[in-house]
Amino acid sequence: MPSALPADSVGVVKPAAFVHPDDFTLQCDRVLHGFELVYETYGTLNSDRNNAVLICHALSGDHHAAGFHSVDDAKPGWWDVCIGPGKAIDTNRFYVVSCNNLGGCSGSTGPRTINKDTGQQFGPLFPTVTVNDWVESQALLANHLKIEKFAAIVGGSLGGMQAMQWAISHPERVHAAVLIACAAKLSAQNIAFNEVARHAITSDPDFRNGYYAHENTNPDRGLGLARMVGHITYLSPDGMGRKFGREIKSGDIASATNVEFQVESYLHYQGRAFSRHFDANTYLLMTRALDYFDPARDFDDSLDRALAQAQCKFLVLSFPSDWRFSTHRSTEIVDALVRARKNVASAIIQSDHGHDSFLLPIDRYTEAFGIWMNQVADEVGACTSAQIPDAR
Amino acid sequence: MPSALPADSVGVVKPAAFVHPDDFTLQCDRVLHGFELVYETYGTLNSDRNNAVLICHALSGDHHAAGFHSVDDAKPGWWDVCIGPGKAIDTNRFYVVSCNNLGGCSGSTGPRTINKDTGQQFGPLFPTVTVNDWVESQALLANHLKIEKFAAIVGGSLGGMQAMQWAISHPERVHAAVLIACAAKLSAQNIAFNEVARHAITSDPDFRNGYYAHENTNPDRGLGLARMVGHITYLSPDGMGRKFGREIKSGDIASATNVEFQVESYLHYQGRAFSRHFDANTYLLMTRALDYFDPARDFDDSLDRALAQAQCKFLVLSFPSDWRFSTHRSTEIVDALVRARKNVASAIIQSDHGHDSFLLPIDRYTEAFGIWMNQVADEVGACTSAQIPDAR
Repeated sequence: MPSALPADSVGVVKPAAFVHPDDFTLQCDRVLHGFELVYETYGTLNSDRNNAVLICHALSGDHHAAGFHSVDDAKPGWWDVCIGPGKAIDTNRFYVVSCNNLGGCSGSTGPRTINKDTGQQFGPLFPTVTVNDWVESQALLANHLKIEKFAAIVGGSLGGMQAMQWAISHPERVHAAVLIACAAKLSAQNIAFNEVARHAITSDPDFRNGYYAHENTNPDRGLGLARMVGHITYLSPDGMGRKFGREIKSGDIASATNVEFQVESYLHYQGRAFSRHFDANTYLLMTRALDYFDPARDFDDSLDRALAQAQCKFLVLSFPSDWRFSTHRSTEIVDALVRARKNVASAIIQSDHGHDSFLLPIDRYTEAFGIWMNQVADEVGACTSAQIPDAR
Repeated sequence: MPSALPADSVGVVKPAAFVHPDDFTLQCDRVLHGFELVYETYGTLNSDRNNAVLICHALSGDHHAAGFHSVDDAKPGWWDVCIGPGKAIDTNRFYVVSCNNLGGCSGSTGPRTINKDTGQQFGPLFPTVTVNDWVESQALLANHLKIEKFAAIVGGSLGGMQAMQWAISHPERVHAAVLIACAAKLSAQNIAFNEVARHAITSDPDFRNGYYAHENTNPDRGLGLARMVGHITYLSPDGMGRKFGREIKSGDIASATNVEFQVESYLHYQGRAFSRHFDANTYLLMTRALDYFDPARDFDDSLDRALAQAQCKFLVLSFPSDWRFSTHRSTEIVDALVRARKNVASAIIQSDHGHDSFLLPIDRYTEAFGIWMNQVADEVGACTSAQIPDAR
């Protein structure tokens, strides 16, 4: 590892690509004539091939969960606080796999991919994908990597939903599932916020019914607005209060002239940064997948019966300041798991960072998470590095 | 009163106009060369002229608070549940005055008014107005009506802020103030939601830097989006859940095809309806007034000292499901009033309707409110009708 990088980093990593050459039928019954998933791996797959951990990303995440893309890289992957040597997901013990979801915009097949049938980007013609579709495409990636069973499948927010679906759809392939800051289905308010975000995008004249790339434009305004709304829901009111309060960036409030509050400036920055790199059609597709997720639907609306399919153990983590997916929503999952007589541990972690908490270095969170994961490593006999057992 | 209208209605009402012919200097130091306020009155001003109640409206409200504009009118004024004979604000005892705020779009001088200097609508050139400016313009209306002192000044949300400012700015003119579902200043999250709404409007290409009326267009999309965001914050998550749940309006969720949830359809309806009648420049101006409101600022950031100016008694009402202005924000006001040794009563009213609760017929709310207001009527000796004292 280059000396410039932190000692507990997985170091410089390089994405790989998995190409599935065959037809893949989606839940919506449409067929992709092959697809590609871009992914990264950290740590070493042991000879029993049983120490793999699958990371499932959330709405705007990607495959780059940990490490750096070069020694000069200013920012590590999005979950670097949880993945690395000695971290909660300990790469001294686990082989971590992280892929960009189908329909994403970071390299996997999605709206930005050239449709071989037309020679043009799929754009709005990219089919609807669901959490089920992600699980099935990830299962093909696992086959490709010759991973029969994951030691753990782990995710926060929309990623937690994927982990839950994995446990239900492929019980024999999951030893443990970690569901962080998620819910068994979206509430009306969750759907409402998603729809506001979608409407911001689709009502932007530059959206061009989704053919913005074909017409050399981009719905920057709509995508920026969508992100601004989303961002408010990722933070807690108290956290925002402590971070920004009513601090003024410019203007004169006494004479009510041209006032810009810090929080406004921050949101605009977030919106602009997001709209520069994220794909609008992917945003629509990801929020739709969130809205549609409801594993109980296939089991007469019984979450207990849905989760009864699972054979794995579960860890359910939530944060009281998270109002997008409140602790109450996690408790629903825990209660259903208990009723389904599953092995479940859960913790509610104090933090004033709202939904974003799952991405942040909160000691009690990373410690509880790490202790539990270390036990998973013990259970599957994961031991790929000389540092063990005193790595933690 | 026409027989078709409910017996407890103030009946058919007609707006009046107050014309202030002189220059009026705003907090921003700009001068309006005269202005007009449209207003309605309900009940009878007694000979002592001491039974007047001023109603202050919220963001999207207007002067039409009670009664009907014709016998065929399908909908009464926006606070008809609280204003009328025998209601919380009992028009058998009180003379109620309700005006459209300066800068509004329902008849008072505002962005839609023709600027005599240019012969065109003010549009975006209408000056910034503040809660202070509203109070001062309402005070001129009170002078015009020869009301030296109001029996009560009453408002919910932004209206409550006006009532608070009245008590601070003109202590000698207020006998009682009722502050419902409001806050002493906006939080960072409140400002953030307002800014998203404003950005939705100003980034709509049809906004034309505010000159949409001059160019015969209207930022319908932006205004609709602003209303959609706002609307989510007016409702509680539980209330939305009970009203809409995950009910589907159209499409097939099993195959993830063209699904529209009821809550999406509802929000779109609200957005469209709003954008048809409300003025975008007024929306910007009203949300700015909300953001800027902070009466403590003039008193070294001490709300206690600001409220110490008041001489009136206070009623502070809030609703636990209101997350836009939570009960905690009302408790801040109550605590400051107690520290300032003011006469304050407060109640927290159970309701799952969120911020909208203050507009709704919730028994415990209208009863507590009514009992307190009836006492106010007793105190000022309000008795204008034969029905009293057994009207309630």
